[in-house]
Amino acid sequence: MKFLVLFGSQSYEHEISIVSAISMKKVIKNEIIYVFIDKNRDMYHIPTDKIKSNLFSSGDYKKFDLVSINQNGFTKKKLFSNQSLEFDVVLNLVHGGDGEDGTLASLLKFFNIPFIGPRNIASVVSFNKFMTKSYAKEINVKTLECNYFTKDCEVKVDNYPVIIKPTNLGSSIGVSIVKSDEELDYALDVAFEFDDSIIIEPFIKNVKEYNLAGTKIDNEFVFSIIEEPQKEEFLDFDKKYLDFNRVETIISANITKELENKLKDNFKKIYNKTFEGALIRCDFFVIEDEVYLNEINSIPGSMANYLFDDFNDVINKLANKLPQEKYIEINYEYVNKIQNAKGKA
Amino acid sequence: MKFLVLFGSQSYEHEISIVSAISMKKVIKNEIIYVFIDKNRDMYHIPTDKIKSNLFSSGDYKKFDLVSINQNGFTKKKLFSNQSLEFDVVLNLVHGGDGEDGTLASLLKFFNIPFIGPRNIASVVSFNKFMTKSYAKEINVKTLECNYFTKDCEVKVDNYPVIIKPTNLGSSIGVSIVKSDEELDYALDVAFEFDDSIIIEPFIKNVKEYNLAGTKIDNEFVFSIIEEPQKEEFLDFDKKYLDFNRVETIISANITKELENKLKDNFKKIYNKTFEGALIRCDFFVIEDEVYLNEINSIPGSMANYLFDDFNDVINKLANKLPQEKYIEINYEYVNKIQNAKGKA
Repeated sequence: MKFLVLFGSQSYEHEISIVSAISMKKVIKNEIIYVFIDKNRDMYHIPTDKIKSNLFSSGDYKKFDLVSINQNGFTKKKLFSNQSLEFDVVLNLVHGGDGEDGTLASLLKFFNIPFIGPRNIASVVSFNKFMTKSYAKEINVKTLECNYFTKDCEVKVDNYPVIIKPTNLGSSIGVSIVKSDEELDYALDVAFEFDDSIIIEPFIKNVKEYNLAGTKIDNEFVFSIIEEPQKEEFLDFDKKYLDFNRVETIISANITKELENKLKDNFKKIYNKTFEGALIRCDFFVIEDEVYLNEINSIPGSMANYLFDDFNDVINKLANKLPQEKYIEINYEYVNKIQNAKGKA
Repeated sequence: MKFLVLFGSQSYEHEISIVSAISMKKVIKNEIIYVFIDKNRDMYHIPTDKIKSNLFSSGDYKKFDLVSINQNGFTKKKLFSNQSLEFDVVLNLVHGGDGEDGTLASLLKFFNIPFIGPRNIASVVSFNKFMTKSYAKEINVKTLECNYFTKDCEVKVDNYPVIIKPTNLGSSIGVSIVKSDEELDYALDVAFEFDDSIIIEPFIKNVKEYNLAGTKIDNEFVFSIIEEPQKEEFLDFDKKYLDFNRVETIISANITKELENKLKDNFKKIYNKTFEGALIRCDFFVIEDEVYLNEINSIPGSMANYLFDDFNDVINKLANKLPQEKYIEINYEYVNKIQNAKGKA
């Protein structure tokens, strides 16, 4: 099994995708091929022994071969002939836009390329926080009540403190905790810089937070350990960023078996059939013994490898059991019928 | 303004897409370029003067030039050089899968190609009937209550008659009206042949149905006339299919100004900002003066041209006012920071 790691792209999380991609070298034992998508969405094949983060900031990646995507794979453009990249499965490691909003899922589906990552509907329900709430409601998973505002709305807050989040971003980008009317305008400016809409949730101080990653292989759930993330008020982008190249396994949260089961049951409802093909991390709040979904990371930082006892085993098993796209046979029955009925169109 | 019409593709509605595409020649006065996507998702440039429906059923389309998609456009592969197709705007006319499920929206976004059609989130909320209900709830538009079942569920019906629909298809494919337990199994088999999940709604005989198409140009809504569709129990695929090459304008439904306004208000809430860039048709039920959304056609058959007084004008204005994708500047601030903090990654 040979993995092709796709990373970078037009995304606020372009840089953390680079860090995530590099971390895979340490935790996946198989051969890895790297394809970098730059901010203009040009694609380059980066030799695995040459990959390091300053290749990208310096622009030196442009020395490597340009790659195009086509039916069943990727091709390097050479002067006199084209060369296909050899791989078995793509690992979509583009965090944020393009990777988690369904763009790459659709691209890979269109070009018939097997991949680990959320499919399009899964992307939409996890990337857009408003859709996440609406999805959670349908599957009977609790979330915090929120208000939704677009740029042209007048924003009103009844009870402080609140947390303001752009609707479509991850990794705490554009997120602020707001404690009073005086802080509101600035926080709104920050959030609306990144998105045309925001959600406002109550901010609950010292809320218990638990992260659980997992996937489904052959109809069986495979769970990570449950982590109680270290935090100050909340993890800002810098902290989360440093987090993205974590490769050391961490210790399980000290919780009751009952709570563990509750968290896993919620994960199962969320993962459902919608997230098949992906390894996701769900971040939960626990308030008075009730579990609330905070967010779904459909492509978690460094694939949450540090939460699994044997990440290499999980990712390989998943790669072997990806959902198959249904092939539709087209037989032109109706075109023939209409031609008979109406003469040639 | 030169249109490039994309049609065909891996979709149960492949054939009606062909009919829709051909009908555009009669109602768009601009130059049109045709790119056909075949069932294997290979793309061909079909000369406009050669297009006719039996090109596709015979396989003769393969005589024409293969086309590939790349940043900013489409390229014909020639033996000694490549040739770009010249056009200004793509008109996404792939009905059903690929066209209406967000696949092509994502592809065109990734390759930075301006297009008329639903963006990805709009595609997901209109293509998946369950997501449509959930979206409608959030925006305060009424829909009929429904039950949702996946293949592995035991299906129970309390009150007949009901209408059974695959979750992810349009054009009445796989849809049945079921009047008793005896008819249930067969209808379920039919629906599950097309999809892994279904919805079951009450079937209301002689319900009033109204279709309204429209778009938003420069923040102003442009509406079609309101049509009361001809129907028997419901339009089956054959009938709807014949419908897809309609080009004659039809007469307005005979309704009160009050109902007209109600329908338009519901359309506005649905179109919102989510459907910007698309021309859509909303199909409504009216029951005891209340308006219910039946379905959103995000790429209506033959673009619902027959519902507009001056379709050519509307489609040209829309083509000139498409929403712009936000460009994210990437500056490698964090990669540089992490390199300083931790040595080279």
